[in-house]
Amino acid sequence: MDLGAYLEGVAEQIDIVLDREFGTLPGQLNKASAHLLLAGGKRLRPAVVMLAADLIENGKAQDILPAALALEVTHTFTLVHDDIMDGDAVRRGVPTVHTKWDEPTAILAGDVLYAHAFELICAAIASDISKVRSVNALAKACADLCEGQHMDIDFGNRSDVDEIEYIEMVSKKTGILYAAAAAIGATLAGGSVSQVNSLYEWGLNSGIAFQIQDDLIDLMADAATSGKDRASDLREGKQTLVAIMARERGIDLTKYRKPTLADEEIDEAIALLEDGGVIADVRNIALERVLRAKKMLTIFPDCDEKDGLLQITDYFVSRGF
Amino acid sequence: MDLGAYLEGVAEQIDIVLDREFGTLPGQLNKASAHLLLAGGKRLRPAVVMLAADLIENGKAQDILPAALALEVTHTFTLVHDDIMDGDAVRRGVPTVHTKWDEPTAILAGDVLYAHAFELICAAIASDISKVRSVNALAKACADLCEGQHMDIDFGNRSDVDEIEYIEMVSKKTGILYAAAAAIGATLAGGSVSQVNSLYEWGLNSGIAFQIQDDLIDLMADAATSGKDRASDLREGKQTLVAIMARERGIDLTKYRKPTLADEEIDEAIALLEDGGVIADVRNIALERVLRAKKMLTIFPDCDEKDGLLQITDYFVSRGF
Repeated sequence: MDLGAYLEGVAEQIDIVLDREFGTLPGQLNKASAHLLLAGGKRLRPAVVMLAADLIENGKAQDILPAALALEVTHTFTLVHDDIMDGDAVRRGVPTVHTKWDEPTAILAGDVLYAHAFELICAAIASDISKVRSVNALAKACADLCEGQHMDIDFGNRSDVDEIEYIEMVSKKTGILYAAAAAIGATLAGGSVSQVNSLYEWGLNSGIAFQIQDDLIDLMADAATSGKDRASDLREGKQTLVAIMARERGIDLTKYRKPTLADEEIDEAIALLEDGGVIADVRNIALERVLRAKKMLTIFPDCDEKDGLLQITDYFVSRGF
Repeated sequence: MDLGAYLEGVAEQIDIVLDREFGTLPGQLNKASAHLLLAGGKRLRPAVVMLAADLIENGKAQDILPAALALEVTHTFTLVHDDIMDGDAVRRGVPTVHTKWDEPTAILAGDVLYAHAFELICAAIASDISKVRSVNALAKACADLCEGQHMDIDFGNRSDVDEIEYIEMVSKKTGILYAAAAAIGATLAGGSVSQVNSLYEWGLNSGIAFQIQDDLIDLMADAATSGKDRASDLREGKQTLVAIMARERGIDLTKYRKPTLADEEIDEAIALLEDGGVIADVRNIALERVLRAKKMLTIFPDCDEKDGLLQITDYFVSRGF
């Protein structure tokens, strides 16, 4: 499978349907709800829903397209609310909802998207029991996403986070929604319990690897590649896996915790972390999650969709450099 | 039916289950989510779910108890988020969630409750198709609730709201959740489309009457009865039905728009409104909604549950004086 072409096709299809469903709704609240949703994005979660559905039974992806949208809508609702909490002003190249409108509107816009996500699950062409299971899975994922965000905020006030807590946080904040995407796609397509569970574990472990890679990108990639200020996590003293493992090895990063860092200082920190084996070990933890994720797909026969999911896992830990 | 005894019994049962489900969850986010839910309340929406279910088929209320909880959880999620937007510090005699914790925790606590509401619908003992329909109905209600709250906030910046806009706002902010409560109870109990629709309209019109009565209570009842500062809507210049109809008749209430009002001033305003026929007309609009609501139940044979629902409608417009 040509993953790039596949993802482009999905993004195009999702964008068209999102524009049709959310592009012309009247009123400021609907416009605020649609704002971030229509600002683009890679639409990876919908792609996972659709690949999982077609992996179970070829052709099912189109039947369950609304559920693919539901995962993107869910992701966007969490972004709208997270941006309020994190005080972020820009997202996907546009002003965040609470910046363009105001905080009450942003809270409500997120809440409206939340409702639409569940409506969209119900709008899939699938058996009723599979819809009930999918609603349940999405609801559980949403509760976990909130817990993950709450842990992430809490970590900002602490300097003693350990690896186990970190993995729990990124599981909930990032892994769970990829897990739910894959599981819901498989459920609605009529997958068995073991197929659904395997895809859930594939998504969970791929998502964890994705988030660890994100932390490495923030540190290692230049601003042009990462699309963010270079080494913002280092400057903010964020409890990333890199920071946690550095602390556990007695590498002191506190001197780098300041508003601005010269490129030389960042390079110095990276050298410190490389010499201490931190970068290699963090990288290995991500790769170990990649192996776990891929192993979950061995129960499926080789096919284009399985190949696509395997490539997504690889992409999650190869992007950004 | 002895409605008082029935409502007390439901509240007791709901409180026990809420305490079991939410009372002992670990972590600050779960505690923040449970905080307002466990602070009491009349549990009217669960009672409506249960009466509607038993109206369709006696004994069903116990099967669909989780869905009754779902409506209370949904109501509470909107209160947690509304309190942030409205800057309210106390609710149900306890500090609001954003006051006791902080705003990010309150946004997330509301979001967690939102997720649990959908899980609870799925946990009812009912057919899968009725659960899918109920999830859809609850999701649509949630989107409307958000729109109603957004309109309510918007009205605060305007002085030209008309009766039609007011009715749309209170329909969405208050009517819709009673409508959804009755419809979901009936749906899960296996009600026909016409039974479900009739109960939906019963709830919508009863809820509108409830909200109009709330506005009258704020103006007319003393603080001990209403449990609020007397005439707060008048002091804040809120666009209630009373204020809208007064303006349409050329009665000027702007002189009463100030932080504190003496009892004599409030009595003077009430006399003005009574002389102009505003109070009587507002009361009549509420009573007209009561008639519409009750008429919706004529398709059902007389029974205890129908009697209970009729009494609830009457209670909605008789309470508070």
